[in-house]
Amino acid sequence: MNRFLDLELLDDQTIASLLTTASALQRDPISDVLRGRVLGLVFMNPSVRTLASFQSGMAQLGGSSFVVTPGQGSWGFETQDGVVMDGTFAEHVKEGIPVLAQYADALGVRCFAEGKDLATDLAEPVLGAIAAASPVPLVNLESEANHPCQALADWKTLDDLDVPRDGKFVLSWAFHPRPLPLAVPTAVVTMAARRGMDVTVLRPEGYGLPAQVMETAAQAASFSGGAVRETDDRAEAMEGAHVVYAKSWHAPAAYGDVEAEARLREGLRDWRVAEEWFGVARPDARFMHCLPVRRNVVVADAVLDGARSVVVQQAGNRLHVQKAVLLEMLGGRDT
Amino acid sequence: MNRFLDLELLDDQTIASLLTTASALQRDPISDVLRGRVLGLVFMNPSVRTLASFQSGMAQLGGSSFVVTPGQGSWGFETQDGVVMDGTFAEHVKEGIPVLAQYADALGVRCFAEGKDLATDLAEPVLGAIAAASPVPLVNLESEANHPCQALADWKTLDDLDVPRDGKFVLSWAFHPRPLPLAVPTAVVTMAARRGMDVTVLRPEGYGLPAQVMETAAQAASFSGGAVRETDDRAEAMEGAHVVYAKSWHAPAAYGDVEAEARLREGLRDWRVAEEWFGVARPDARFMHCLPVRRNVVVADAVLDGARSVVVQQAGNRLHVQKAVLLEMLGGRDT
Amino acid sequence: MNRFLDLELLDDQTIASLLTTASALQRDPISDVLRGRVLGLVFMNPSVRTLASFQSGMAQLGGSSFVVTPGQGSWGFETQDGVVMDGTFAEHVKEGIPVLAQYADALGVRCFAEGKDLATDLAEPVLGAIAAASPVPLVNLESEANHPCQALADWKTLDDLDVPRDGKFVLSWAFHPRPLPLAVPTAVVTMAARRGMDVTVLRPEGYGLPAQVMETAAQAASFSGGAVRETDDRAEAMEGAHVVYAKSWHAPAAYGDVEAEARLREGLRDWRVAEEWFGVARPDARFMHCLPVRRNVVVADAVLDGARSVVVQQAGNRLHVQKAVLLEMLGGRDT
Repeated sequence: MNRFLDLELLDDQTIASLLTTASALQRDPISDVLRGRVLGLVFMNPSVRTLASFQSGMAQLGGSSFVVTPGQGSWGFETQDGVVMDGTFAEHVKEGIPVLAQYADALGVRCFAEGKDLATDLAEPVLGAIAAASPVPLVNLESEANHPCQALADWKTLDDLDVPRDGKFVLSWAFHPRPLPLAVPTAVVTMAARRGMDVTVLRPEGYGLPAQVMETAAQAASFSGGAVRETDDRAEAMEGAHVVYAKSWHAPAAYGDVEAEARLREGLRDWRVAEEWFGVARPDARFMHCLPVRRNVVVADAVLDGARSVVVQQAGNRLHVQKAVLLEMLGGRDT
Repeated sequence: MNRFLDLELLDDQTIASLLTTASALQRDPISDVLRGRVLGLVFMNPSVRTLASFQSGMAQLGGSSFVVTPGQGSWGFETQDGVVMDGTFAEHVKEGIPVLAQYADALGVRCFAEGKDLATDLAEPVLGAIAAASPVPLVNLESEANHPCQALADWKTLDDLDVPRDGKFVLSWAFHPRPLPLAVPTAVVTMAARRGMDVTVLRPEGYGLPAQVMETAAQAASFSGGAVRETDDRAEAMEGAHVVYAKSWHAPAAYGDVEAEARLREGLRDWRVAEEWFGVARPDARFMHCLPVRRNVVVADAVLDGARSVVVQQAGNRLHVQKAVLLEMLGGRDT
Repeated sequence: MNRFLDLELLDDQTIASLLTTASALQRDPISDVLRGRVLGLVFMNPSVRTLASFQSGMAQLGGSSFVVTPGQGSWGFETQDGVVMDGTFAEHVKEGIPVLAQYADALGVRCFAEGKDLATDLAEPVLGAIAAASPVPLVNLESEANHPCQALADWKTLDDLDVPRDGKFVLSWAFHPRPLPLAVPTAVVTMAARRGMDVTVLRPEGYGLPAQVMETAAQAASFSGGAVRETDDRAEAMEGAHVVYAKSWHAPAAYGDVEAEARLREGLRDWRVAEEWFGVARPDARFMHCLPVRRNVVVADAVLDGARSVVVQQAGNRLHVQKAVLLEMLGGRDT
């Protein structure tokens, strides 16, 4: 495996194998298998748990990692072709990535969406430019419109909890003081569909996921025996749910228009997951979130501190699945 | 040992054992005993020597570490209960710490005082919230009102220099352009008292350490055979001193009131340790400071560059005692 | 070797030995020879490739490294003697460097020129103060007026490409939106002269390298059989060139005068290396640059994306030569 950019680019067997390896690494975390190997982590946007889990994962496998933050200070990577670079950016990915690749056995890159034009962000131009420039294995640490590490960790969490493959999975939009990227909802809705689940996207008017995202999820469902639909009817969505996955995201209907988006969000503060939401769900329904989560804004304390919350386990699985990805990429290669 | 938050929470035997281990590690610094183990360093405030000495220490013991700085950028940890998190902080320690704990065998945390309300800072609410949230061993890298790594390093330095257990220890306030936290003076006065020393806090009017701090130190002295008192009379304080430990701190009498504090500090520029101060001290009296130190503001060049200064050795002992703490916490545990 | 500050302070045999070791490490990069050893990297200015290549290099040799950035936030190192430190800086190198040296087997330091007074920057006061304060081996990670890691990597690149020792080497000034330090052109012109090359500095009026720099290069050439001269005649300079090394730098004629420098630079946008420049050069002439490079400002896409560009290889050699320096400094010492 030379690229880990999008679960949809991996076949079922690869995903199954990564999940099996992740569980084995969870039981037996420490080895020397990546002795002398180096992972380069390139953060164009800040990170806490991704940085920590990747650095820890490499160390537990006997390897090492370095962190560069080209988006800070006067630095930055240009990604477009043919540009006269007399502006902010001092370096193009065409040099920056091949150079860093010479110092690393694999690279990871984080590049958030710009949040101006929806079609542009969904096309992932920055991730694409970096992938085109990297001669070494590349891991997506959250891109403009995807977060496969999160999605794979969530898949493992569902497996760990024995949530049925065909169980009901609700992805619910939630209020947040700021418009947030589409990367996690995009990755998660497709992951759940791919796993064969009965997926409902619960969201207010204007927050329907982009058609392209829903189509990809529907296609994944068609192969796995799952289903995908959208609604703004909470009772209908929650009925019999095995899992509620909360996440806020930018309104696609007002993408890039900060004021219109703020008006749309106004009055949606009650989109805060509360214990009452679970009245018609299954009694053992789980609550999921990718973190960080704003307490009592996105979800009430009672849910997060209660037995149904598995958010900490989800984050724990980030470590295990990422180590599986690194092993798959680096474990068998000659130095 | 699962917590290293305050020397006063450790019994005499544990402190003695840590000091013995630290000296052994100073003689024989490199091993593989922490192979595969990871320390997570969480800095809510910046650091130079704490970051460097902990990263180096883990590496010398065969382990590894990662650094996260949640207080930078748009990130940050909320620590209060029941808050509606629609403000600055995007994550609560109730999630943030347990998540990072899954990536690490132990955590270290730095959380400076807020500097607004003295009673609040002395109660250490941030350190307390983090300690309550951490399922793994936790090291205080300097909290609102304590700095046990510094205090233990200073204890070792006093032992290394054969300063008598019952010698005279002067903690002197010094001028500084800004009001500084109480963490170091609090930790140091109690450490010296605990070691059995005859402790004098030399400070101008308004800079007396908080009653709670002096009481803790007095209690420590009552068990060790030491003594603790305060004065603003320099000659009396310096008479026969074995050690002068300089440090600036916030005026407790004007805590949180920046202007009143500045007025109080006005005219105190002569609280700069000078060679003349040592005229009535013992000829071999030592000068100590936790660093960083502002030359010719806190202390004159002649003192810092002279034979009595042991500030660099103090900082060197940070490495050795911290490695002893890490070994005690992690050395015997199964992975 | 206890200092790697300037290639001119090393004898020919040491340089030859470093280049040989670097090639060996390129063929066989991973070992345990620096097990337990720690490199402390002190960045007073930001870095991407230097940080990454040094951290990776130590890891590949079985050692470790830490990064401190004292120039960020409220921190910083004072370097002058006798100063009353009541300003920005909270720490003097006289304490800061010896303290960090206790946590590391070697230190690396980056300290860019201030850009105000040419004579001051050429005298390298900050590097000098740090070198005087460091009790452990010290590597220059780019100082006020030198960059020996870059120069040695470039030397290896010339050797790798079989560029004749007495080949024609053109160092050409190039346009850039901001005035840049003299460290790289200074290091490179002397390296090429030292290697025995026929060196031409091609630059517009006002951008002649400082006399002191040209004299050092001329002296190096006199020992190696090379030559050094300057011109503003592009055709003459490019005639028969084996190598064109592009770099922008501050106008020495207007050093420290931002407005005068900007006026001087006005109208020099055509100092952008283009394929046409190579018409009179050797057909296989190489294009070199230390990176980062602004595309279509410093050099046209066609050159950078063409067969003559070796900029990525240059950066790759940073890793190999730096590992050779670290091995030379640390490999044979007892722990």
